[in-house]
Amino acid sequence: MSSPPITSLQNQRVKDAAKLRERRQRDKQHRILIDGVRELRRAITAGVALREIFVCEPLCRTVEARRLLDSLDSCGAEILPVTPEVFAKLAFGDRAEGVLGVARTPAARLDDLKPPSGALVAVVEGVEKPGNLGAVLRSADAAGVSALIAAGHGVDLFSPNVIRASLGTVFTLPVAAASAEETKRWLAERSFRVFAARVDAERLYTDVSYAGDAAIVLGSEAAGLSDIWSGPDVTPVKLPMCGAADSLNISAAAAVIFYEALRQRQSR
Amino acid sequence: MSSPPITSLQNQRVKDAAKLRERRQRDKQHRILIDGVRELRRAITAGVALREIFVCEPLCRTVEARRLLDSLDSCGAEILPVTPEVFAKLAFGDRAEGVLGVARTPAARLDDLKPPSGALVAVVEGVEKPGNLGAVLRSADAAGVSALIAAGHGVDLFSPNVIRASLGTVFTLPVAAASAEETKRWLAERSFRVFAARVDAERLYTDVSYAGDAAIVLGSEAAGLSDIWSGPDVTPVKLPMCGAADSLNISAAAAVIFYEALRQRQSR
Repeated sequence: MSSPPITSLQNQRVKDAAKLRERRQRDKQHRILIDGVRELRRAITAGVALREIFVCEPLCRTVEARRLLDSLDSCGAEILPVTPEVFAKLAFGDRAEGVLGVARTPAARLDDLKPPSGALVAVVEGVEKPGNLGAVLRSADAAGVSALIAAGHGVDLFSPNVIRASLGTVFTLPVAAASAEETKRWLAERSFRVFAARVDAERLYTDVSYAGDAAIVLGSEAAGLSDIWSGPDVTPVKLPMCGAADSLNISAAAAVIFYEALRQRQSR
Repeated sequence: MSSPPITSLQNQRVKDAAKLRERRQRDKQHRILIDGVRELRRAITAGVALREIFVCEPLCRTVEARRLLDSLDSCGAEILPVTPEVFAKLAFGDRAEGVLGVARTPAARLDDLKPPSGALVAVVEGVEKPGNLGAVLRSADAAGVSALIAAGHGVDLFSPNVIRASLGTVFTLPVAAASAEETKRWLAERSFRVFAARVDAERLYTDVSYAGDAAIVLGSEAAGLSDIWSGPDVTPVKLPMCGAADSLNISAAAAVIFYEALRQRQSR
């Protein structure tokens, strides 16, 4: 980092990067923003195509941040030192960890997913709240899910809030965005058994076997699942609801089912 | 609701209620605010001592809201109609469901908890983010947990955000706030077996039995659990972490362990 820091808020590269907070600009530029040390580290590990990394050294206070800085030279991105004032313009809310990456938007194509034999795949349909989508990704990563497919139209899989809520696991976990129809066909072609979480299901989620190639489909709390996830080739399952409320948050429901599948698989 | 609506933003009761968004005022007035139809309905069901309910009829558009309005006369609170302008001053963010209750702060004393024989009790220590605390409450309610104890100093168990994130289950589930020391003594006096979720535990959460009187202790992601939850009378358990991230969100971890306990109990 020998070059002098960018000091001007009017610097074109700073302005272009700051615009990437808006989805329209991300779609137009085919680029995304990656905030935070952990998130950037996971993106680099996953081979995300980083173009540039803004670095504000005075804000890189943690051991992890220093370690990341030491490793940046080999990641292929251009390193752009900036002053704290410039970084404040670029950074997201309270996340002033001193590093911010700009990367090419990962492809996230369904046909690029190559799940192993006996894969557990998560499908989330119509989940638009980035916090929920990120939390499901994080639980899927933890529970050893092989891939996550965001089904529906216009899912913003790499928004800064999804990246943040997922702790960067949106990069390390194989992910795809596709329509519900494409997703269902993809699963059928690969002979996945499909389980759909529904509050009105008759079978408990613990009364089915998730062995072999299995997919767990979850919808948003507000909209539920579309009709495509009904029919003889989909097994509806429910979580017992013992209390006053009639549903769980999607990220809690996802974690419970993913971990039940893991428990069954590990005890076999 | 025959009285004319309050139209003045300077009305003293409106001003007193609006102040209850601040914790200091809640502690001083010994009152809390309850936003939302579902939350208010659950508070009434649970016997929370409601003092007054501000109602803005034009905003009560849903069937649930109309049904709640019809039942308010019998709940003992004074009903105060207000104009949309006044309601906007009182209401929380985007939650304009047309009803807002002011209630006496529930006691939430440890000694008032009377768990049944074979109870599963949840303990959360040092969880300060209201969204997380509310989500854990919601999962505890769903999984049939008998009571939840918020351990630590100064937990704000009935903040508007906890009420909201819990969907009002903070009223229907028996809850208490106490120090960690008091909580541990309370559990020991009742011969609870205590399981503490720790990332460094050796045993998996699925390799223990939650039969009988059992407590599950969870800490915040940032601070973990205090030393009081170590020692021979506490069994540390962990969730398998199969991916890139090294921990789960507390509400996801809580849901997974609560539901594993429920699974074991229901399959016996």
